Amino acid sequence: MKLEKNVIDAHNQSLAQKHKSKLAHFLEENEGADAHIQKLRDFQIAIPSWALGTGGTRFGRFSGGGEPANLEEKMADIGVLHQLNQSSGAISLHIPWDIPKDAEKIMSLAKSLNLKFDAINSNTFQDQPNQKYSYKFGSLQNVDKNVRDQAVAHNIEVIKHGIALGSKSLTVWLADGSSFPGQLNFREAFENTLASLKEIYAALPADWKMFVEYKSNEPNFYSTTVADWGQSLLYATKLGPKAYTLVDLGHHLPNANIEQIVSLLLMEGKLGGFHFNDSKYGDDDLTTGAIKPYQLFLIFNELVEGMDHAKMNHASGLAWMIDASHNVKDPLEDLLQSVEAIMMAYAQALLVDRKALKNAQQKNDVSLAQEILQAAYRTDVRPLIAEARLQSGGALDPVKLFRSAKVREELIKERGTETKATGL
Amino acid sequence: MKLEKNVIDAHNQSLAQKHKSKLAHFLEENEGADAHIQKLRDFQIAIPSWALGTGGTRFGRFSGGGEPANLEEKMADIGVLHQLNQSSGAISLHIPWDIPKDAEKIMSLAKSLNLKFDAINSNTFQDQPNQKYSYKFGSLQNVDKNVRDQAVAHNIEVIKHGIALGSKSLTVWLADGSSFPGQLNFREAFENTLASLKEIYAALPADWKMFVEYKSNEPNFYSTTVADWGQSLLYATKLGPKAYTLVDLGHHLPNANIEQIVSLLLMEGKLGGFHFNDSKYGDDDLTTGAIKPYQLFLIFNELVEGMDHAKMNHASGLAWMIDASHNVKDPLEDLLQSVEAIMMAYAQALLVDRKALKNAQQKNDVSLAQEILQAAYRTDVRPLIAEARLQSGGALDPVKLFRSAKVREELIKERGTETKATGL
Amino acid sequence: MKLEKNVIDAHNQSLAQKHKSKLAHFLEENEGADAHIQKLRDFQIAIPSWALGTGGTRFGRFSGGGEPANLEEKMADIGVLHQLNQSSGAISLHIPWDIPKDAEKIMSLAKSLNLKFDAINSNTFQDQPNQKYSYKFGSLQNVDKNVRDQAVAHNIEVIKHGIALGSKSLTVWLADGSSFPGQLNFREAFENTLASLKEIYAALPADWKMFVEYKSNEPNFYSTTVADWGQSLLYATKLGPKAYTLVDLGHHLPNANIEQIVSLLLMEGKLGGFHFNDSKYGDDDLTTGAIKPYQLFLIFNELVEGMDHAKMNHASGLAWMIDASHNVKDPLEDLLQSVEAIMMAYAQALLVDRKALKNAQQKNDVSLAQEILQAAYRTDVRPLIAEARLQSGGALDPVKLFRSAKVREELIKERGTETKATGL
Amino acid sequence: MKLEKNVIDAHNQSLAQKHKSKLAHFLEENEGADAHIQKLRDFQIAIPSWALGTGGTRFGRFSGGGEPANLEEKMADIGVLHQLNQSSGAISLHIPWDIPKDAEKIMSLAKSLNLKFDAINSNTFQDQPNQKYSYKFGSLQNVDKNVRDQAVAHNIEVIKHGIALGSKSLTVWLADGSSFPGQLNFREAFENTLASLKEIYAALPADWKMFVEYKSNEPNFYSTTVADWGQSLLYATKLGPKAYTLVDLGHHLPNANIEQIVSLLLMEGKLGGFHFNDSKYGDDDLTTGAIKPYQLFLIFNELVEGMDHAKMNHASGLAWMIDASHNVKDPLEDLLQSVEAIMMAYAQALLVDRKALKNAQQKNDVSLAQEILQAAYRTDVRPLIAEARLQSGGALDPVKLFRSAKVREELIKERGTETKATGL
Repeated sequence: MKLEKNVIDAHNQSLAQKHKSKLAHFLEENEGADAHIQKLRDFQIAIPSWALGTGGTRFGRFSGGGEPANLEEKMADIGVLHQLNQSSGAISLHIPWDIPKDAEKIMSLAKSLNLKFDAINSNTFQDQPNQKYSYKFGSLQNVDKNVRDQAVAHNIEVIKHGIALGSKSLTVWLADGSSFPGQLNFREAFENTLASLKEIYAALPADWKMFVEYKSNEPNFYSTTVADWGQSLLYATKLGPKAYTLVDLGHHLPNANIEQIVSLLLMEGKLGGFHFNDSKYGDDDLTTGAIKPYQLFLIFNELVEGMDHAKMNHASGLAWMIDASHNVKDPLEDLLQSVEAIMMAYAQALLVDRKALKNAQQKNDVSLAQEILQAAYRTDVRPLIAEARLQSGGALDPVKLFRSAKVREELIKERGTETKATGL
Repeated sequence: MKLEKNVIDAHNQSLAQKHKSKLAHFLEENEGADAHIQKLRDFQIAIPSWALGTGGTRFGRFSGGGEPANLEEKMADIGVLHQLNQSSGAISLHIPWDIPKDAEKIMSLAKSLNLKFDAINSNTFQDQPNQKYSYKFGSLQNVDKNVRDQAVAHNIEVIKHGIALGSKSLTVWLADGSSFPGQLNFREAFENTLASLKEIYAALPADWKMFVEYKSNEPNFYSTTVADWGQSLLYATKLGPKAYTLVDLGHHLPNANIEQIVSLLLMEGKLGGFHFNDSKYGDDDLTTGAIKPYQLFLIFNELVEGMDHAKMNHASGLAWMIDASHNVKDPLEDLLQSVEAIMMAYAQALLVDRKALKNAQQKNDVSLAQEILQAAYRTDVRPLIAEARLQSGGALDPVKLFRSAKVREELIKERGTETKATGL
Repeated sequence: MKLEKNVIDAHNQSLAQKHKSKLAHFLEENEGADAHIQKLRDFQIAIPSWALGTGGTRFGRFSGGGEPANLEEKMADIGVLHQLNQSSGAISLHIPWDIPKDAEKIMSLAKSLNLKFDAINSNTFQDQPNQKYSYKFGSLQNVDKNVRDQAVAHNIEVIKHGIALGSKSLTVWLADGSSFPGQLNFREAFENTLASLKEIYAALPADWKMFVEYKSNEPNFYSTTVADWGQSLLYATKLGPKAYTLVDLGHHLPNANIEQIVSLLLMEGKLGGFHFNDSKYGDDDLTTGAIKPYQLFLIFNELVEGMDHAKMNHASGLAWMIDASHNVKDPLEDLLQSVEAIMMAYAQALLVDRKALKNAQQKNDVSLAQEILQAAYRTDVRPLIAEARLQSGGALDPVKLFRSAKVREELIKERGTETKATGL
Repeated sequence: MKLEKNVIDAHNQSLAQKHKSKLAHFLEENEGADAHIQKLRDFQIAIPSWALGTGGTRFGRFSGGGEPANLEEKMADIGVLHQLNQSSGAISLHIPWDIPKDAEKIMSLAKSLNLKFDAINSNTFQDQPNQKYSYKFGSLQNVDKNVRDQAVAHNIEVIKHGIALGSKSLTVWLADGSSFPGQLNFREAFENTLASLKEIYAALPADWKMFVEYKSNEPNFYSTTVADWGQSLLYATKLGPKAYTLVDLGHHLPNANIEQIVSLLLMEGKLGGFHFNDSKYGDDDLTTGAIKPYQLFLIFNELVEGMDHAKMNHASGLAWMIDASHNVKDPLEDLLQSVEAIMMAYAQALLVDRKALKNAQQKNDVSLAQEILQAAYRTDVRPLIAEARLQSGGALDPVKLFRSAKVREELIKERGTETKATGL
């Protein structure tokens, strides 16, 4: 399904007057903030192909309806999202869940939906039917060279799919690790993993990046072979200039200061991108901004500061992706909420008075530094984001329009209630 | 020191026009929100007498200057805070750090500063000079009846001081616990503590409350004898109707859902009050709202819902207190920031559309429930709080006025840089 | 499959001499320890019917082979375990995964395998085919009375199955909770849950117990409606004397002092039983004793002390069950290791010099208290446990015999590699 | 005070027969284990000069008696410890708490006590009287070059003291960090710290090492500038071959897998040494082995494996130190218990059947790998350690002799109850 332009227009018309008044007040209160609108418009967050269906836990899964049953339908869903918010113009594929049988056709569909292909993801954390060797005891780390070779070959295959679609980066998330003391030799697991990654790295086109994602635990419950940013950075450094660390917000030990990690990775020129989500306990994969919106702002505060310092383009310097699971919400509504929360955090970070903050820091004026950060955070930036959406052709209130346009009902009508999107 | 009325007036004058415009816009956007102004004006947060000086950690303490050297000076400091924000009209004393030698004189000073005496605090976690028995191995839990008796007697003494000052509640925070497996018999420690509390409870005046505070760890590092809300509730239930649980935001294990605890304690009629602060790792005692402002809002969301359900008066139904340590900020600025953050969370909770939220909950409409909560949270409520302050005679921008009126400089002039406030 | 008695005998014969020497040394070093052998023999740990197959995470599942495909085969597996260690003489069933079609036949099978039916478990955390209402948004807590009624009816059905098999207790574990702020009204969720539990409680036979299990998080990631021991105790107290709290070792927030909880629940007469497992991060469901064996000992230390104080029979006073997931080990080997670790912790706790410990505690002699506890913990109790097994007819080295007797190979031959045990 | 040789001999005599029997049984059960005795004898754990007095928390401090009042007395205390266990033949000094006024005299005292000077520690986390600039906002990270220069100069001064005493390494632990978002620019704090460390590094003698210690939090509660092993490794790598990471067991986020960190640092050739202690919640600084003895064993398991792989000498390859606080125990007893726990973990790690473990790992035989590790861990190695002590001239039961010889009573007689050791 696709929204008609006049549906969006009518929605915007109905909210236009109220929006104008809010925006005017906002711009009056935040001098010069209109300069940020273009940055907000340029900022695109990739939607992962595996997040369009109902998620589940090891205890169960409660389906919704109208889930996309194939890649084309997934892309259509993202197309609708992008029509609504004009900030979701990219898709992050997962192989083998989304193998494009006809790349050209898929490319042409993407073009018609105004979507690009962001980082492409390999999967060596599950066994596929007819797979020769099992990943039960790890893939790139495996003690058995045959298993490692198979996993390397899969990753190279994934790169090929990515090339065909115009993707420019490979995300490697490894479930590799151990669940019991003694199961692994940590050093050899690291060395095997590094050797495997080197083979994949060698297959990267010149203009590609490799993102080495880290995670503290799950699905292994004693050790993970790329467990934290320090380990990821070690791999990325040993691999070379095309290798970067990818930060998933839910992959840390309790209480980790993620914003500091972000700042240091930027300093090292080794931050590759993000998987956004939110969490309270572990890798809960909840809607971004649903639990710790201030932390999200603090992360964007470091991103803006660090990218400006390194003279990076905000929109294209890093890979921005959502990675979440939608167990109790409509996945599309959930994604709209996540994107909105990310845009808010980014906008608030843009509002931070950097010169004043720098000045306060130089004087160790801690109270004032807090005042400056919180002044930006407490600002209601919704009018600014809505305006950016409006200028790009999106909807003033995406979730509202999603509901009033009965998108889900339409999808159920089209696809039924029994389809199940591939993914977790 | 005391601020002159004309200083406050001049400050307000200078910001009046801008404030009016913001307020008008706020009220236009939030229909009916002016009804909350009186609630905000009535809401008073007690300042602990031990939080007016520089705090420290076990590793060191870096003094500021102009610290209050005695109770009268502490009250003067709170008087200034209250002049600035009109929301700090209460003081929470700590015995023996603040023994009032002449209660009547202190009462009259309080009146002149427009302050009331909130919950009074006992201290059995430190040994005082000339104390007969040591609290090294606990106080109310101690295996030695002599120690327990001494601690009980101290608490009863504290109640007497409180009576003389018009306080109506006793806060019992116990450091009692153990640092090593085997050190304590948990059951007997509980039973001793309960028996001791019963003796103190028996000495409470009819219109008093006893708050049993809990804490997961520190200064004991293996067990605490009132370690969580469940244990506190067990004591409070066994003690009787005057005993309540007190929640300190920093006293929980990592990831605890404090707002749920708050809701359940209100349900049981056993929530007594709060110690506000913020933290990232443990009992960090940072400025309220400095780390997890959304959590603070969610707590107030439960407070407003639960107190309304129980038909409690927001301002007087519970005891509202700050409990923080000020290691790197000016304590008075820090307290102003804490109070502001609390008022914001309270105002945002008042803005929640309760009927719509209830409706969404009844339909399991999770996305909508989030939209409703976040709509309130994302609202910039600063104009509303400023207006409440203004109407009560406070300053539109307390921290700004604190600085422009050179309060700290004045205090240093008066008291020097070497004074040290009693406290931690 | 069933082991032949002569296989066990031959195994024991081969290790007899070595065992005798170790035992003799052990008894020489630990005077009076032979008095514990009968206690160890009496101590039986129930095996959950859902733990006999390969477990999985939300990311995947890697099958082993020879898994039991039905209740009879599950019982056969437990029968083998019990033959090997003589400490697994009970089974904890899960409905609807293990509905006994012919209760009498099942009873007779159990008798032949020397097994009893321990607590029976209901399941309202998954939807079953043809179920009228969904548990997506909770069961006993649900805002919809129809859902609650369905969940209550299921639990009553489970009790009936339990009665038919001679079980004497019902374990209620609820996944009920919420994944997002605002989703639930905590108070009403509690009240609904309590009302539902009361209906189930009313259906309990006079000699039955109800175990209310708690869990901090997962599969809900914001709140759980029976989230901690305090909440469970609140329910159990409101329900009545047949309701108890059940402790699962993996269901706590980080750093929780579980042994103190155990002690206090025993004090209150409200500890019902245990789900044993081990974990490093969350509810990892690893082999008991694989990560924190000292914590397990400290828990047993409290259990022995508290049960003796309350004059409870160690073997029958509480319900002892394993609850784990076996993702990378053979489930039967894993269960043998778990039982062994539990028996060791129990034996070490029996060895604690209680009189000396009490004495040290009375003198606040913390170093000595630690020496006493660790003296017991550091003792190698394997000979004592082996002797208890031997006297009961089990194997001196269960894991070794499991392997040398090629149990798994036999099971695969019998059942093939494609069977999948119901469970998680 | 110093123990007379005949006191130790008499003690050993009294326990000789029992010891011999235990040892004989142990060696019978653990073939070839006598080969480990020399390794155990060689293994020396440095005692920090700040751990000989009563520790405290920010809430208070409860003195014991007989504390050493100066460096000579501290050395005497360690001398007694070393007499008792023959494993504490080194001291780790802290400047300015232990400035040796006459280095030669101190050296000669050390010789007479059979002590060496291990890593020497600087202190830039506290202000000293008459210090020109304050470390309130950090030292090596400070925005003010004057402060950084002062801190660098202090470290260079410390190196000089170390040279005079024959020390060969400098431990740099920084409290530097921030307590509030916005307070610091993380990148600049890192860069300032690195520049400062480079100046210190440049002053290191050719045969010295620099240990860069990391800590997740405390005394700063938002960020730490050397917060985790990844950051420490980044500094150490940028500094050069003489810079290493130092691991303090209590300085991690909850649930961190320390043993994996140890293994990877060894792999990188960048592990410098250890600060041993134990903890349940944060940096609790409890007796080593008092809370998580199995974790300690797992760490030593990696140490032995990794050092053997790198052909490092166990005793001299790394710096072994205790870093703990003694709030409720006699510091000397506490240290004896810590050393004993470390020796046990080391001995158990030596007992691991490495060949069998390797083999199990190669076959992904997870159950067997666990059996192998736990077989070593469950072994009661106390007789072996006692024998190593005996052969070196120490006491069979150090804590027992400490008590029977009334060491503490003697120290109180000598020094009184009012002395206070410098330290935390």
